[in-house]
Amino acid sequence: MVDTRFAVSVQIMTSLAYRYGGEELMSSEDFGHILQTNPTFIRKLITKLVQANLVESFRGKGGGIKLARAPREITLKEIYQAVMADKRLVATHEKPAFKHCPVSCSMGQILCDVVTGMERSTLSYLEKQRLSDLVSKIK
Amino acid sequence: MVDTRFAVSVQIMTSLAYRYGGEELMSSEDFGHILQTNPTFIRKLITKLVQANLVESFRGKGGGIKLARAPREITLKEIYQAVMADKRLVATHEKPAFKHCPVSCSMGQILCDVVTGMERSTLSYLEKQRLSDLVSKIK
Repeated sequence: MVDTRFAVSVQIMTSLAYRYGGEELMSSEDFGHILQTNPTFIRKLITKLVQANLVESFRGKGGGIKLARAPREITLKEIYQAVMADKRLVATHEKPAFKHCPVSCSMGQILCDVVTGMERSTLSYLEKQRLSDLVSKIK
Repeated sequence: MVDTRFAVSVQIMTSLAYRYGGEELMSSEDFGHILQTNPTFIRKLITKLVQANLVESFRGKGGGIKLARAPREITLKEIYQAVMADKRLVATHEKPAFKHCPVSCSMGQILCDVVTGMERSTLSYLEKQRLSDLVSKIK
C-alpha cells in the first residue's frame, strides 16, 4: 500500500497554518471531507502531530484542532519525524546474510549507512522548509 | 509490498565491484542464491543496470554479468536512478483537489515541490558515494 502519511500530514498542517490566528477549529471529519480520506486515518495522524507538540486538540462540542505554534516556527522536518519516525526512507532487505559471502556479511551495515546518509540529507532539506513557506505558495 | 529494488541493486553492484578485475562472471542465479530472492526479480534489476550502462551482460555457456566501469567511476546516484526512476521518494496522494478549498487546490504543486526538494537532497548525497567506498567497507 502506498504510504501517504507524510503528504496527508503536510496538507493537514498547511490547512491549519492557512487559518492560523483565526478562531475556527478544524475537525478530523473536516479533513476527511477535504482530503476524501478515511477520518480514522486522519485521526491517527493528528494523534501523532499532537504528541509531537505541533498541534493542539480541544474536545467537546465545537472542538477540533489548531496549530500549537506559529507557521514560521514549524519545520517540515518536525512533521516528517512526527509521522514517519518508524519507517526508513528506502527499504533495506531483511534476509539473513549468506555466510559464505563476505559481501553479503557486510551488506547489512553498508546499506544501513547508505540509507542513514540519505535520511540525513532529506531531513536537512526539510529542516530548512517552514510551514509558512508553504502557506505563501497558496494561490 | 516493501520496495527493495535499490537495496538489492546496491548489493548486486557491490558484489560485482568486489570481484572487479577478476575473470569470473556472476549470473542472476548466483545472486538469487546469495540474496535468497526470486531470480526473475534479480533479472529485471540487471536489465535496468545494463540499460544504464553500469553492467555488461554476456550470454551463452559461462555467461553472466560484470561491471561496465571501475567501481570508483560508479556513483550510488547512478544505481538509484537506474532502478528507481519511476518512483517518487515519498508518495503524494492522488485525490483530486477539493474545489472549495484554496489550500487543497494549491496542494498538488506544493507537495510536488517538497518531494522534488527531498529527492534532490538525496541524489546529491548519493552522487558523492562511490561504489569503491562501499567495497572498502567489506570486512
